Amino acid sequence: MTDPSMPEFVSRHIGPRETDVEAMLETVGQPTLERLCEVAVPAVIRQDEPLTLAAATSELAVVEELRALADRNVVHTSMIGLGYYGTITPAVIQRNVLENPAWYTAYTPYQPEISQGRLEALLNFQTMVSDLTGLTTSGSSLLDEATAAAEAMTLMRRASKVADGAVLLIDEGVFPQTKAVIETRAMPLGISVLVTDLTGVTSGEALRAAAGDRDVFGVVVQYPGADGRIEDWRAVADAAHEVGALVTAAADLLALTLLTPPGEWGADVAVGTSQRFGVQMGFGGPHAGYMAVRGGLERSLPGRLVGVSLDETGQAAYRLALQTREQHIRRDRATSNICTAQVLLAVMASMYAVYHGPGGLRRIALRVHGTAVDLAGRLRASGAEVGDHPYFDTLRVSVPGRADAVVAAALEQGVNIWRQDGDTVLISVDETTDPGEVAAVASAFGGETKGEEPGPDAVDNSTAPLIEPDWPESLRRTSEYLTHPVFHAHQSETAMLRYLRRLADRDFALDRGMIPLGSCTMKLNAITEMVSITWPEFAGLHPFAPADQTEGIRELISQLSGWLSDVTGYDAVSLQPNAGSQGELAGLLAIRSYHLDRGDDERRICLIPSSAHGTNAASAVMAGMKVVVVKTDTITGNVDMDDLKSKITEHAEQLAAIMVTYPSTHGVYEDTISDLCAMVHDAGGQVYVDGANLNALLGLAKPGRFGADVSHLNLHKTFCIPHGGGGPGVGPVGVREHLAPYLPNHPLAPEAGPDSGVGPISAAPYGSAGILPISWAYVRLMGGAGLARATQVAVLNANYIAARLREHFPVLYSGTDELVAHECILDLRGLTKDSGVTVDDVAKRLIDYGFHAPTMSFPVAGTFMVEPTESEDKGEIDRFCDAMIAIRREIDDAAEGGVESSVLRGAPHTAQMLAGEWQRSYDRATAVFPAGVEAADKYWPPVARIDGAYGDRNLVCSCPSPEELAQD
Amino acid sequence: MTDPSMPEFVSRHIGPRETDVEAMLETVGQPTLERLCEVAVPAVIRQDEPLTLAAATSELAVVEELRALADRNVVHTSMIGLGYYGTITPAVIQRNVLENPAWYTAYTPYQPEISQGRLEALLNFQTMVSDLTGLTTSGSSLLDEATAAAEAMTLMRRASKVADGAVLLIDEGVFPQTKAVIETRAMPLGISVLVTDLTGVTSGEALRAAAGDRDVFGVVVQYPGADGRIEDWRAVADAAHEVGALVTAAADLLALTLLTPPGEWGADVAVGTSQRFGVQMGFGGPHAGYMAVRGGLERSLPGRLVGVSLDETGQAAYRLALQTREQHIRRDRATSNICTAQVLLAVMASMYAVYHGPGGLRRIALRVHGTAVDLAGRLRASGAEVGDHPYFDTLRVSVPGRADAVVAAALEQGVNIWRQDGDTVLISVDETTDPGEVAAVASAFGGETKGEEPGPDAVDNSTAPLIEPDWPESLRRTSEYLTHPVFHAHQSETAMLRYLRRLADRDFALDRGMIPLGSCTMKLNAITEMVSITWPEFAGLHPFAPADQTEGIRELISQLSGWLSDVTGYDAVSLQPNAGSQGELAGLLAIRSYHLDRGDDERRICLIPSSAHGTNAASAVMAGMKVVVVKTDTITGNVDMDDLKSKITEHAEQLAAIMVTYPSTHGVYEDTISDLCAMVHDAGGQVYVDGANLNALLGLAKPGRFGADVSHLNLHKTFCIPHGGGGPGVGPVGVREHLAPYLPNHPLAPEAGPDSGVGPISAAPYGSAGILPISWAYVRLMGGAGLARATQVAVLNANYIAARLREHFPVLYSGTDELVAHECILDLRGLTKDSGVTVDDVAKRLIDYGFHAPTMSFPVAGTFMVEPTESEDKGEIDRFCDAMIAIRREIDDAAEGGVESSVLRGAPHTAQMLAGEWQRSYDRATAVFPAGVEAADKYWPPVARIDGAYGDRNLVCSCPSPEELAQD
Repeated sequence: MTDPSMPEFVSRHIGPRETDVEAMLETVGQPTLERLCEVAVPAVIRQDEPLTLAAATSELAVVEELRALADRNVVHTSMIGLGYYGTITPAVIQRNVLENPAWYTAYTPYQPEISQGRLEALLNFQTMVSDLTGLTTSGSSLLDEATAAAEAMTLMRRASKVADGAVLLIDEGVFPQTKAVIETRAMPLGISVLVTDLTGVTSGEALRAAAGDRDVFGVVVQYPGADGRIEDWRAVADAAHEVGALVTAAADLLALTLLTPPGEWGADVAVGTSQRFGVQMGFGGPHAGYMAVRGGLERSLPGRLVGVSLDETGQAAYRLALQTREQHIRRDRATSNICTAQVLLAVMASMYAVYHGPGGLRRIALRVHGTAVDLAGRLRASGAEVGDHPYFDTLRVSVPGRADAVVAAALEQGVNIWRQDGDTVLISVDETTDPGEVAAVASAFGGETKGEEPGPDAVDNSTAPLIEPDWPESLRRTSEYLTHPVFHAHQSETAMLRYLRRLADRDFALDRGMIPLGSCTMKLNAITEMVSITWPEFAGLHPFAPADQTEGIRELISQLSGWLSDVTGYDAVSLQPNAGSQGELAGLLAIRSYHLDRGDDERRICLIPSSAHGTNAASAVMAGMKVVVVKTDTITGNVDMDDLKSKITEHAEQLAAIMVTYPSTHGVYEDTISDLCAMVHDAGGQVYVDGANLNALLGLAKPGRFGADVSHLNLHKTFCIPHGGGGPGVGPVGVREHLAPYLPNHPLAPEAGPDSGVGPISAAPYGSAGILPISWAYVRLMGGAGLARATQVAVLNANYIAARLREHFPVLYSGTDELVAHECILDLRGLTKDSGVTVDDVAKRLIDYGFHAPTMSFPVAGTFMVEPTESEDKGEIDRFCDAMIAIRREIDDAAEGGVESSVLRGAPHTAQMLAGEWQRSYDRATAVFPAGVEAADKYWPPVARIDGAYGDRNLVCSCPSPEELAQD
Repeated sequence: MTDPSMPEFVSRHIGPRETDVEAMLETVGQPTLERLCEVAVPAVIRQDEPLTLAAATSELAVVEELRALADRNVVHTSMIGLGYYGTITPAVIQRNVLENPAWYTAYTPYQPEISQGRLEALLNFQTMVSDLTGLTTSGSSLLDEATAAAEAMTLMRRASKVADGAVLLIDEGVFPQTKAVIETRAMPLGISVLVTDLTGVTSGEALRAAAGDRDVFGVVVQYPGADGRIEDWRAVADAAHEVGALVTAAADLLALTLLTPPGEWGADVAVGTSQRFGVQMGFGGPHAGYMAVRGGLERSLPGRLVGVSLDETGQAAYRLALQTREQHIRRDRATSNICTAQVLLAVMASMYAVYHGPGGLRRIALRVHGTAVDLAGRLRASGAEVGDHPYFDTLRVSVPGRADAVVAAALEQGVNIWRQDGDTVLISVDETTDPGEVAAVASAFGGETKGEEPGPDAVDNSTAPLIEPDWPESLRRTSEYLTHPVFHAHQSETAMLRYLRRLADRDFALDRGMIPLGSCTMKLNAITEMVSITWPEFAGLHPFAPADQTEGIRELISQLSGWLSDVTGYDAVSLQPNAGSQGELAGLLAIRSYHLDRGDDERRICLIPSSAHGTNAASAVMAGMKVVVVKTDTITGNVDMDDLKSKITEHAEQLAAIMVTYPSTHGVYEDTISDLCAMVHDAGGQVYVDGANLNALLGLAKPGRFGADVSHLNLHKTFCIPHGGGGPGVGPVGVREHLAPYLPNHPLAPEAGPDSGVGPISAAPYGSAGILPISWAYVRLMGGAGLARATQVAVLNANYIAARLREHFPVLYSGTDELVAHECILDLRGLTKDSGVTVDDVAKRLIDYGFHAPTMSFPVAGTFMVEPTESEDKGEIDRFCDAMIAIRREIDDAAEGGVESSVLRGAPHTAQMLAGEWQRSYDRATAVFPAGVEAADKYWPPVARIDGAYGDRNLVCSCPSPEELAQD
């Protein structure tokens, strides 16, 4: 039963019941939760006053409060465009992906054998992007169009052979937020960016001239342009190639069903968003960005790339390809810091394409174009000048001196259109636009209204005419796309429903069992937290909608950032970064700007302990810093204070910052943290505390109060935003007062950040605003006491695991009284040496027992890092410990009988294996029904152990044909 | 891709693509869909004009239209009570049961091996009801409290030994709608019902006196009473037993957590609703009714009963128990006609109990009581008289002469309370009531408002005091309840989420594959159809809310009933019956009343063909008719017209009606239907056409136009309401004009039916109003042309199966050109004779192939009836045909090798079997991966073939203890 002493929801969020807590404390050897945390958490950092947040409230009341905030938003029809469009999320996808825990509680597919469903969905995404853009290879998703364009900038810089100092040319027609994010990202890297009109350029010479006679390494164009005009960029691409530059097209996927794809007119890279493929605007996000590249550039792609490989039985299986490119491996040699992206949204967009197929997508595009043509006709009839450039969905309308009046008149009709300048407005239609809305917006231009005009009741969006564009032939797409059978096989709702179920059933997510990943904090994502994100009042807002239409969501954002300040001890928090990596970058840019403003131009050294998350180093590089590694004590796992001192001394004048994780990545509360902060501050540096492990601090200690200057948090870890199989993430950055002027801001939303800010770090003013209600609800439901209780139980759960497993696997690092923080490291190195059984073997064997493996070999190779979180109950934790203890016995058996023939090396075992010949040294039941596994509820991995290297040697990153699959 | 020639949704609802349709027509040997139906459907009934419904509209537009209707409802706080209360659906249950196709698209668990998840949930329901009522055995669910009480009446009549002519006594305190439904149901059965005040009765003599000195067979009391007062009914129970009568308590499950349960004070039967266990009011339904009985009466329980048995490996397994009691088997000897009940809602209510556990339920009850005590104090302070009877949640407030004014004042505050009479109001609080609402309703009584009163912002419902009732000791519950571990093991949200997933994963529903059940029409339940049912504007309405607050839903109901009239050709349709069985009863009662009004008292004979659904006969008996069976031609499957003629002649003066199914239960369009109608009409009888097979007529023919007088439809068949594992159902009844005065009505809602009506047939004025938006949306999305197209494709799909399978299994009945209607019968009798392989063997073997079996042995023993519906695509249908053909080969093998050792007799095969010793005549792969089964996507039945008879001999109908399970 729920614990009557605390609010009901706290008891629902936390796994162990009151009596369980007592039993677990006994195992851990501590009398109370409070005492456990007193011993575990160093006194120097402990926060003894309770949090000042408002008291928790009930689930029903929180929904009512959210409703009240939602009601303060006004959802008008958006015809603003600029990269955000009305779209129809097919109901079958909304309910069975976005609202289905089997999809949204999944983790990044690092254990590919139990992630085949979402890997297939992502391969579909890659195929879709690659087909539509006409380029060879697409990655699985990026954060948004603007950051994708920034990634394209650095990719082009690396790939171009022209000398350092060359510039990036951006065409004027690129979306304003994209230009701004590129500029934010270019500055620390010392890249010059020029915005100019490239439409007339037909030669390399002209291109260099546009760059002020400098070398050009890259060109970015929008396709169709921000103001709707479609240019034929072939000549520009030829010109760029002539001078050794690469070309990136920021392209609209829906338009590409009708338009000659960038890959066919010479673009090297295409970037964009898949938002309008069924993902609601959500006041700016989350949506999946994309990037595709021509052959030869695939190994330079940032982010994740799904590829096809083989499992040990020789059947095709999917997994992340070319992981050695990634930031967590390349650290300070990384070329991008991106990790978590927008997987859940990429899955939705891919399913939108699967559901509509090429014919359906094309019809939507023709209908959208037909709507635009209809509107253009009406506007012309009313005397407005629409221009005669080719367009797809966006009209640039000249209304000299009348733009404000026209915008106001449209608003009067319930439609937002975009004021480009005093004489010009932009109007973008989309698949949701209905005849009533077309008539309404046309009437805002003051033309004659005919008697038979559609009224507000004309809500059927499917009645617009399908009109083939009358574009010049060179712009008209002739090539096929989405020819793979998957884009043709699931187009009744029943077929789609079953496809989604089938894929989900191949995967293991939190709805099946524990995912004890160290520092990934896979806790409950409560439904009440999730429920409001699909309300139209939150989901239907354009990020650039007039401020008086978005009061409710902005109040929610302001409250949430206030609460985050309270719990972290920082003075200001920006919610703009839409992933932890972006929060890191924003924090480091703030530090860098702070030093620059003080004239400390030379402060570019960033100290990073050797045990840090690889992303830290990658982000430091993106922020234009130079990484210097500080040693970690091999015995305690702590930062080597002597080495730190010497590094500080050595680099005192150049010291910009230190980045540490607290509690450490080893799962230990280091009691030297205050000294460390003081030493760095004394040398003029700033202290960056990575908030990855905030789940061990909340309510017990505040980084902003124990010495740090800046942290990023991960709302998708500590604050219950679901992982979604690898995103959406939200990575707010919190800073002390002196850094607050350097937080992100946004050119189109002055209220979103300080005037003195570093520029936008993501496309939308508030990043992934659409999912912030989740974290808002979590804080509101838990209250200060509930958050503290969650932390205490998270610490208890980790220590309970450590206590139960210590005699079977050495616990690598611990502090006072052998206590760990909220996670613990199990050391398998000795066992590996003795038996040959690797962490990989154990990870795969855990699948047979019905578990997702803990983090492998981070921060120490040959170990497991286990973080149960507070949401796992004692039953599940015991089941895990029992499995690990049983596996320990299997390791002993393997030491004796040989690892090659062991049940560990054979894992995971599929049902297909079971049905075939059996010539193993152990029997079938041992393989698939080890102790603790209920036969009726068994999770069956769909493939056996995957050979990742095979796939990297034979790179296939789009859907293989049935024939190819059969050949395998 | 979707077919551009029809509205997109029609293409989503229908399975086969345009090209598939062509290929399938070729197999069937017909040139076009239109021609196929011209040949298949007799000209005499064909409706050549298209339906006059409005054109189909898009999914987006339908949601907007529904939103506009929803906005015309006003959701005030309900304190009306009378069996309908505000409740909190735990979000984890709403999303993972009500909104999860794995639960809501399931079929009745007639194939128990693939229904273990929902059977466990229903066993939990039975355990919950049995524990809370203190009675031995509970059935799995009934339709609502009022019909459950009517069923209790007939049960008591059967079980009581007192002579015919004895009366039923109903205490005054019983809910008005319950009294009225009992009266509707008593009349045709010739049972006398008396409503009187039983509170003073303490002896058998007094009880007989209350009955006007007549024998009494049963007593019904409400506990707590409708006006909130709690009586100690022990003396009444003793008195009843003294005179040979039984006692039924209509009891509130939440109150029973604090109140002495009926089983402990002598009730023989308890009935009620489980609505307030997390199921929204929904303007009256659907919610699960319940019935529990003392030992000795279990075999008399109406409806379904889940019990524990063993599978062939000896492990415990659940299945429906004692099925020989049921109407479909007992036909005209049945004692109830109930089939589909409210399984999905029973599952939700059971999960509410699992989630809260006994401690949580008790705390909710104490909080509700605390709220009532708080309110009573405030009302007394304002001078209102609350009375001093014990109460739980409902206050009876005396406000002499001021009731109307007080009701109006409360409404002013946004709260509905109940006007009992001009001097009295009733106020019921519930778990959603918050301090602001208590203060608001108190203020309506005109007392002093203190400065610190909670305002409308006080929305936290969890802050009410928990108050132990100060009731007399005899009323206070001391016994334990919900002691089974299941009510203690899933109380964090994570644990609950996983429990729901685990159970769902054991089951096979439409989200996995085809469920080709003859005449059960398991078609797509599209998400867009489902999405509005959880909107508060539909879900939050009390069925007795003032009419001006329910304009939107009543407009929707009126439109839907108009559309149903249009498509069926009837003049009036009532949507009140909340299951097909109730629709049948309503239709037959209309016929009976019609005859009575014309003085035809003797017309009580109902002709029913031998091939009819068993429920037809059962309903006729409930309607007070006498069943006379008409033969069916053994060759064609048609009604034997000669026998019909002779039966009509024989019974001409007594002939009330004929009940036929069209197309016939054999899946054939009988071309004699017009003659049949004429013959019956000529003899003065009425023609009842069972609408079970309407999916073969919609858009092609209208029963109301080809001769029928009345039909019930099944919205959960033809009109997309999901089956939910056995309900909710909606069974509208449509009639020609002369029968319209005899449709159901309702004492509390004059607008719900004709003044001259037969009385209410279900508790709520519009039955399961909360789910009518589903069917409304379906009709709106399809339009007339879409509905006709769906019928055509349903006919095509069935004929395609018949064509593909005919050479492997004889197709039992067919019409012109060997065409069937929307289903076909595969005759296995010859094969069974030759090989020993039974239909049961084939049904279980289909599980290994990943299919739900077709209907077995109905209407002809030893056959399969297959109805694919229009929603199944060619791929799935081919997969089914391939499986049947492969099974045919397996039958041949069995004929040769012996059936006992065959793969058919061994089916279904579990994963557990696979892992153990294997000494079968076939190999493992043959058992579990027959051709066409993808190993990665295999559905594994959790148990092997179940021995149903064992469980009937050893009846266990509540959760077995872990020890009991282990013993098995």
